[in-house]
Amino acid sequence: MKLNRKLRMGMVGGGRGAFIGAVHRMAARLDGEIDLVAGCFSADPAKSKASGADFFLAPDRVYPTYQAMVTAESALPADQRIDFVSIVTRNNTHFAVAKAFLEAGIHVVCDKPLCFTLKEGRKLRDIVRKTGCVFALTHNYTGYPMVKEARDWVRTGKLGKILKVVAEYPQGYAISALETASDGKISNWRMDPAVAGASNCMGDIGTHAHNLVRYITGLEIDEICAELSTFIPGRPLDDDGNCLIRFGGGAKGILYASQVSSGEENNLNIRVFGTKGSLQWFQENPNELIWKKADAPQQIYRRGNSYLGAAAQANTRTPFAHPEAFIEAFANVYRAAATAIADKVGGRKAPKDGYDFPTIDDGVAGLAFIESAVKSSRRGAKWVKFPKV
Amino acid sequence: MKLNRKLRMGMVGGGRGAFIGAVHRMAARLDGEIDLVAGCFSADPAKSKASGADFFLAPDRVYPTYQAMVTAESALPADQRIDFVSIVTRNNTHFAVAKAFLEAGIHVVCDKPLCFTLKEGRKLRDIVRKTGCVFALTHNYTGYPMVKEARDWVRTGKLGKILKVVAEYPQGYAISALETASDGKISNWRMDPAVAGASNCMGDIGTHAHNLVRYITGLEIDEICAELSTFIPGRPLDDDGNCLIRFGGGAKGILYASQVSSGEENNLNIRVFGTKGSLQWFQENPNELIWKKADAPQQIYRRGNSYLGAAAQANTRTPFAHPEAFIEAFANVYRAAATAIADKVGGRKAPKDGYDFPTIDDGVAGLAFIESAVKSSRRGAKWVKFPKV
Amino acid sequence: MKLNRKLRMGMVGGGRGAFIGAVHRMAARLDGEIDLVAGCFSADPAKSKASGADFFLAPDRVYPTYQAMVTAESALPADQRIDFVSIVTRNNTHFAVAKAFLEAGIHVVCDKPLCFTLKEGRKLRDIVRKTGCVFALTHNYTGYPMVKEARDWVRTGKLGKILKVVAEYPQGYAISALETASDGKISNWRMDPAVAGASNCMGDIGTHAHNLVRYITGLEIDEICAELSTFIPGRPLDDDGNCLIRFGGGAKGILYASQVSSGEENNLNIRVFGTKGSLQWFQENPNELIWKKADAPQQIYRRGNSYLGAAAQANTRTPFAHPEAFIEAFANVYRAAATAIADKVGGRKAPKDGYDFPTIDDGVAGLAFIESAVKSSRRGAKWVKFPKV
Amino acid sequence: MKLNRKLRMGMVGGGRGAFIGAVHRMAARLDGEIDLVAGCFSADPAKSKASGADFFLAPDRVYPTYQAMVTAESALPADQRIDFVSIVTRNNTHFAVAKAFLEAGIHVVCDKPLCFTLKEGRKLRDIVRKTGCVFALTHNYTGYPMVKEARDWVRTGKLGKILKVVAEYPQGYAISALETASDGKISNWRMDPAVAGASNCMGDIGTHAHNLVRYITGLEIDEICAELSTFIPGRPLDDDGNCLIRFGGGAKGILYASQVSSGEENNLNIRVFGTKGSLQWFQENPNELIWKKADAPQQIYRRGNSYLGAAAQANTRTPFAHPEAFIEAFANVYRAAATAIADKVGGRKAPKDGYDFPTIDDGVAGLAFIESAVKSSRRGAKWVKFPKV
Repeated sequence: MKLNRKLRMGMVGGGRGAFIGAVHRMAARLDGEIDLVAGCFSADPAKSKASGADFFLAPDRVYPTYQAMVTAESALPADQRIDFVSIVTRNNTHFAVAKAFLEAGIHVVCDKPLCFTLKEGRKLRDIVRKTGCVFALTHNYTGYPMVKEARDWVRTGKLGKILKVVAEYPQGYAISALETASDGKISNWRMDPAVAGASNCMGDIGTHAHNLVRYITGLEIDEICAELSTFIPGRPLDDDGNCLIRFGGGAKGILYASQVSSGEENNLNIRVFGTKGSLQWFQENPNELIWKKADAPQQIYRRGNSYLGAAAQANTRTPFAHPEAFIEAFANVYRAAATAIADKVGGRKAPKDGYDFPTIDDGVAGLAFIESAVKSSRRGAKWVKFPKV
Repeated sequence: MKLNRKLRMGMVGGGRGAFIGAVHRMAARLDGEIDLVAGCFSADPAKSKASGADFFLAPDRVYPTYQAMVTAESALPADQRIDFVSIVTRNNTHFAVAKAFLEAGIHVVCDKPLCFTLKEGRKLRDIVRKTGCVFALTHNYTGYPMVKEARDWVRTGKLGKILKVVAEYPQGYAISALETASDGKISNWRMDPAVAGASNCMGDIGTHAHNLVRYITGLEIDEICAELSTFIPGRPLDDDGNCLIRFGGGAKGILYASQVSSGEENNLNIRVFGTKGSLQWFQENPNELIWKKADAPQQIYRRGNSYLGAAAQANTRTPFAHPEAFIEAFANVYRAAATAIADKVGGRKAPKDGYDFPTIDDGVAGLAFIESAVKSSRRGAKWVKFPKV
Repeated sequence: MKLNRKLRMGMVGGGRGAFIGAVHRMAARLDGEIDLVAGCFSADPAKSKASGADFFLAPDRVYPTYQAMVTAESALPADQRIDFVSIVTRNNTHFAVAKAFLEAGIHVVCDKPLCFTLKEGRKLRDIVRKTGCVFALTHNYTGYPMVKEARDWVRTGKLGKILKVVAEYPQGYAISALETASDGKISNWRMDPAVAGASNCMGDIGTHAHNLVRYITGLEIDEICAELSTFIPGRPLDDDGNCLIRFGGGAKGILYASQVSSGEENNLNIRVFGTKGSLQWFQENPNELIWKKADAPQQIYRRGNSYLGAAAQANTRTPFAHPEAFIEAFANVYRAAATAIADKVGGRKAPKDGYDFPTIDDGVAGLAFIESAVKSSRRGAKWVKFPKV
Repeated sequence: MKLNRKLRMGMVGGGRGAFIGAVHRMAARLDGEIDLVAGCFSADPAKSKASGADFFLAPDRVYPTYQAMVTAESALPADQRIDFVSIVTRNNTHFAVAKAFLEAGIHVVCDKPLCFTLKEGRKLRDIVRKTGCVFALTHNYTGYPMVKEARDWVRTGKLGKILKVVAEYPQGYAISALETASDGKISNWRMDPAVAGASNCMGDIGTHAHNLVRYITGLEIDEICAELSTFIPGRPLDDDGNCLIRFGGGAKGILYASQVSSGEENNLNIRVFGTKGSLQWFQENPNELIWKKADAPQQIYRRGNSYLGAAAQANTRTPFAHPEAFIEAFANVYRAAATAIADKVGGRKAPKDGYDFPTIDDGVAGLAFIESAVKSSRRGAKWVKFPKV
């Protein structure tokens, strides 16, 4: 990371009981190069304060609102204030929070999806460009070493020309109507259009699958035919969706996301078929990458081995067969972002071939994906053109 | 089977070098209740004769044409002539051959797809009905015991209401353009519209996936959106296809078949997701059926165990973990058909709940599937209504 | 097989309800080169007769005793009498039955273990040698194509020098004391020393593991340390056993067989570790052979592919990913034995590199294994020298 | 953890380039409750200093020797000095280093094996008892949630009476003679008896397998028959070993460890067979625990699900199918030890049912295992009685 001190991180959201905030903190902490020093952990000031105490923060660095946090942190001397903020709030607040910190010159790591609408996303992109701040989006699945290996395979031509991509993200956790509380309110905010946006399932996990496809293959969608479904009655948003895809250049795709695939856990997976061979990767077994080719034995490439490419090797912390998993992959996003931030802080230029973390552009592409899928579905699953992002 | 003799089988097609004819013979033979006694094994009389010798047949029961075979066998005394014929020729001849034998009162086992067009298929159905003969179509994958178990699960409500079905049939054998011989002719008849019909990939293997879905779930397609592709240049027919499906009753589906999924072998598989749980079955690991359900351990049901249903048990020949596979599943189709034929021959009524083998109706449904997929694809992958079969 | 007729097979044992007899018949029948024409299917003449009728045999070829069968068949003209007999009776009768047929010049296929004691086995070997008859022992697991591929790997040096072999055969079927009937008698003959011999578990399945090790590696045991256990009280024989092995040449081994490994089905497996790489094969997933090597991706070799060796290819009936299993492997033993028998019958010389089926010598080695394991165990699991066979 | 501050950790060993030290630091850091504040990272003072800078430590807390560290830290005020030390040096120094810190009243987390000889281990145990300090040994594999679930199964009787245990730890990394440098010296200290002790393979990884058996089953060895081998010429210590085991109470066991199982990575696994069912766990797929039982479908229990027991749930950080792995398991040992240390520091009593981390007693048992295995092997693999520990 090349700084003679740890980076100082703030956090917005992620208080007591929040799942993804805790993951961000573990991921940030893992390599010992980032310290959490400030935060506004909840819209409820008391909960924010209690959470800050849980994390052993100085009380005066725990804020009741994110606005107060921006103001106070900006007023601190340069050797005390946070270098960057992690935003782990709900979708509908990402834009305002990110804007506030970016405009104060504070770098941002933000949970996905980027924000609420494609229009909003483009605006945020403008702000990022204007401020010159680092902006990282935690599409964490691209942090897995074997996903990076898969990308290398495509880039170096191991698969030949790509013909077909199949990406799936089945979950089953929403098979029960957990989101409807006894008072009729939607307790799961992901099912609430005012908080989650135009889509639940496609927005929450379909975007991960879409991002994974883009990351590994470099292919961009040209046209999409999507049918979103709401299988559990009473939900205002989709809990399942199937897409056919035409990629630029002629490849075809299937992308399927579901939260009502009963008994599935978090079975994100991708298969890419090329003229010379194909690859398969399953998130629930992330240390393996499968290679299949006509008239040759199947091969299982495993994390940590010397035969892997540079990216897979650089994103590995333990030797082969000392498995790594979700938190380590998440930490790889943080480490890459931290490197970029440290370079900014330290006044160094970016390396020639850039950094390897998801950016604001990935976020905008994700919003285009959500909007296109929703649009196609509303038209009865007709093919729609993917927008220029 | 309840006859005091073996059934006598004839065969049309399947001479030296043919793959599927050899499978039919092994399947027919396995249980020791069927003897191959006559055949016309090739359109080339010399090859037919040589093949008959390979199979130790009496020379006078080996025929130069199927027409000669119908005539000669019909003229034999009842205790000598064939009880049924197996038709294992190319798609474009199924209709004529089957018609000839049916009209001579000879029962038929026929390879899939049923015949050339939906129209032809309906005509053949009329003939079957008129003659009262047994007609079995070798959609052999439904012969696997664990596929029968899967059907039992759906029928008995173990899955609840079905929400979604994903069926895949990836192969990779056609990733190389093997079908183009050096003289420019199409050496693989499956790629030749004059022999294979309107589709290669969907007709050859997509129909298997479609049949498997119908067999296990009982669902019928209401609307289909299909995009067939020809990835390897120069092919007159599809080598890949993706379908979105709307089933009657509201379930959604994805069906994907490909012969250019490099490195895949014969990876037919199906996943059915219901409100109470889901099932998964993979043809390459056919002795297992996977059960997944929210908040419960995954379960792997294995062939040959006492906890399985009656259909799975009745279609099993060896104890658990003495694995069975492709030939045994194929033989289950033969055994069920042979039981029906023996009942006819022996003058017995069919059992109340019928027989368990694919019939002429399955064949007609398969042709409707091919025609609908082709029609949708030709319109640019628009949704089309599935025809009444 | 190169005869202008099918071989004629007789059977001793294997009447109604017998498991292994039915397997032998399916295996013999599969390739259409062998006809079952005679038999003595039970020590109970009525049951023998009924079984013969089940199999559609001529009543005068169904015999009340094996002695009667030898006499009658020997008296038939050469173009009618059986070419060989399959012996599928209990262990304690193998010797006498085999002897009778061999001395009548009738070739033999015999179920394992060969017979009752090593001494008996050596005597039988003398008889085989003297009569010049073909004698095949159905150590069926060596019939799997991927087991043959494994042997090829060892023979061609792909593994380098073999350091270690781990062979396991866990079953769980005897975890319940099923063998004790309510009248106190032992209903499972395998647990009865008077019928099964000195060992149940090691004799029944340990010998399969031992045979598999020998077949694949070519290694012979030099010393063995075995501890047989009887975990379920009341059994006169072992239901489990663990062995350490020192092979000639310095390799070490572990061999474990159990019938009380609750929930295991028939999980025979072998791992062979050499200086250049290692192989793994699991009977419950028989179409795959795994190759592991330091600093290289794992490879999964799959049955039916063109990259496999000649033996694997020659013992395959269906293309890749149309899986084959137990019955087909068993049929490979029959086919190889039938080839040898046909050569004898047809007066042809054996091919230069011999036939590929388990012989009387394998049977004698198996008896030596049983006796050594029992001897070591009785001495408190001390190392004992393996006898010269 | 119930302290209003983070615990302060020191470290001995684990400087630049050391594998296991880095793992200890990540594990300690993961939950944000422990800060590394001091250390002596190498016997080379310059390297120690440079390593301390890498870890952003205050230079005056980085020491040239562990003795200097004990002295200086002991002299610091109570609110500054380390609460505990992590010892990650080579085997032959564990005793002296641990002794020094314990006698200064500083709690200890120590890498395995505990120390050099059983005698030394017993002495260290006396010191631990006398000082009353917390002593945790990082047998990290017991930190996996599904290993804890396995222990629960045994404890609650789900398996019935245990009959048999099979534990394996195959690695392949030492198949090449990497330890011999060009100057003939042993570069891999694990192969050097003066540093590693009486055994390489059994000491390094066999002890992990042994510990895992004890943790899950609660069984203690009564007698052992071990054959250690040195397959790669020139090594002074074993690189492979096979053991037969008799446990107290009548269960039997096989334990196998190897570093020359070519192509194996870190394939620690255990199978426990009981009268009511059996369990299987594989370290390379640590989020699953397999349950097998006669006449019932196999079940795969997966980490993070609500159907798991309290211990598995308490040792989990991410929801199901967001896989956890090696570092998280390691961190569970640290978290449990930190809880005990925090209780000591905070003056609280231990909970009634104690803590769940490996202790000095586990370390002594491990040394007894090593010494017994070596003793048996030296006698030609004779059975030896396991010592009272």
